[in-house]
Amino acid sequence: MTVIYKKVALIGLGLIAGSIAHAIRRAGLSDTISGYARSAETRDIAREINLCDVVCDNMVDAIKDADLVILAVPVGAMAAVAKEIGPHLKAGATLSDVGSVKASVIKNVSPFVPDNVHFIPAHPLAGTEHSGPRSGFAELFDNRWCIIVPSDQTEDTALNKLRVFWKALGSNVEVMDAQHHDLVLAVTSHAPHLIAYTMVGVADDLSRVTDKEVINFSAAGFRDFTRIAASDPTMWRDVFLNNKEATLEILGRFTEELFDLQRAIRHGDGDYLHDYFTRTRAIRRGIIDAGQDTDAPNFGRNLTKES
Amino acid sequence: MTVIYKKVALIGLGLIAGSIAHAIRRAGLSDTISGYARSAETRDIAREINLCDVVCDNMVDAIKDADLVILAVPVGAMAAVAKEIGPHLKAGATLSDVGSVKASVIKNVSPFVPDNVHFIPAHPLAGTEHSGPRSGFAELFDNRWCIIVPSDQTEDTALNKLRVFWKALGSNVEVMDAQHHDLVLAVTSHAPHLIAYTMVGVADDLSRVTDKEVINFSAAGFRDFTRIAASDPTMWRDVFLNNKEATLEILGRFTEELFDLQRAIRHGDGDYLHDYFTRTRAIRRGIIDAGQDTDAPNFGRNLTKES
Repeated sequence: MTVIYKKVALIGLGLIAGSIAHAIRRAGLSDTISGYARSAETRDIAREINLCDVVCDNMVDAIKDADLVILAVPVGAMAAVAKEIGPHLKAGATLSDVGSVKASVIKNVSPFVPDNVHFIPAHPLAGTEHSGPRSGFAELFDNRWCIIVPSDQTEDTALNKLRVFWKALGSNVEVMDAQHHDLVLAVTSHAPHLIAYTMVGVADDLSRVTDKEVINFSAAGFRDFTRIAASDPTMWRDVFLNNKEATLEILGRFTEELFDLQRAIRHGDGDYLHDYFTRTRAIRRGIIDAGQDTDAPNFGRNLTKES
Repeated sequence: MTVIYKKVALIGLGLIAGSIAHAIRRAGLSDTISGYARSAETRDIAREINLCDVVCDNMVDAIKDADLVILAVPVGAMAAVAKEIGPHLKAGATLSDVGSVKASVIKNVSPFVPDNVHFIPAHPLAGTEHSGPRSGFAELFDNRWCIIVPSDQTEDTALNKLRVFWKALGSNVEVMDAQHHDLVLAVTSHAPHLIAYTMVGVADDLSRVTDKEVINFSAAGFRDFTRIAASDPTMWRDVFLNNKEATLEILGRFTEELFDLQRAIRHGDGDYLHDYFTRTRAIRRGIIDAGQDTDAPNFGRNLTKES
């Protein structure tokens, strides 16, 4: 593989930035990876596991002379980072991010981007429930999708370079506008996460069912929800605060639909329920056929305590 | 392993009955397994894959002389089956089931159970999103829980025998009353399933987001919901119709809590959201420590199209 950006700077060294670093090295996409994280502990771990070529104690050092700077911090922290590094970005560099929300990031970051820098937001749809500098791995983006959200002013050359970069990290790439991205993600990610958090919270709260019962008997369905509800709290707080309208809209639709199914249960309308449950089977088949999930039962879980 | 029941009859030959057959053979728990399924196609497949020692074309033949009869049909079909086989059950035999709801099964089946037969309902908390005679496997119950729901009249000897049987199939066993079982399952299984079905239905319905987008971008969280929402429609229709009160109660609590979190999003109450999301992390840790789920990222999914 040929080098795409000579120097890549990663701001934030969690699951996504860590996986980017591993995937850059796997494919040899840059000569130098520099990194910065706010927490000294994270920086120390990153140095210990050799996550980047150089881990800097301040942001401005990390982005110096970088050809691509990727903001991989919670969405709510992006503006402050952009403000600090903006004046020091290399002329002609590309500034990108990996935030789960795009319209608010564009609104909050754009004012700090100099005219001679290409600001091209992106969002790799990949992750796990783990977080921190040790959680990254090179395969995270393989066959997942990365959505790139250029503006009307984005130059084709810079856009294509970022597209080639994400493909070389293993992703499929799609381009869309920020508004549509935020709606699509409200459906495929943000609403499901809030729903999972809620269901886990309810189970935890219900005094007539003990925590031990919830835990022991979780294999009947509940445990699937707990994986999502174990995701990073700061990241998700910021997602909901920054994609308020679309998330609330989808949750409104969800509640309507839930009430409809509750009514069918209450009235004993078995045909309605059966039809509904038959329809939802088809979409899983589509996801498996598209290579976005495994067909192995129970996600192919391998429980070490099983024999 | 020693034989526990000389002859076991399985009524219904889907995922659960199939897995019981495999696990009986793995451990050598009976001399003969007989089976019956309503559909001729299912019976043919069962014969083809040698699922049982004998597959009968009618129920009464299958249960003749059986020491243990297990009803493994949708909850709504149990009463009709019990009515048909009741008069032909062997004196001293145990009649059990694997239904996901217990109070209604007890109410509907009990009238058809002769006095000289032990009726001991049970519910193995194990399954996958697959169904049918080919979907069973011997390890399904390993380290999962089976809840046995005896009545006041249940004889200790018969109860202990069934308990030993389920342990030999690989399960942990817990005994509880029907009412509590139905509430616990409403939390750990029935409400999560309805919520997953609902979320998948909403995504499928939303005209501004295409099915292709929902499918391609599902790895951001949504795909987890689709596994549950691909479960057998008939089984789940019957679960909801037969555990109405407890399911609707938990869904009511869920909606309350969801509204509370929606309000926090609308008002921008980040601290509330962060605290909530931090609390829900702990319950996942408990589930992993109890051996009820894997700690591998993304359930350790192995997507063949990757790499």
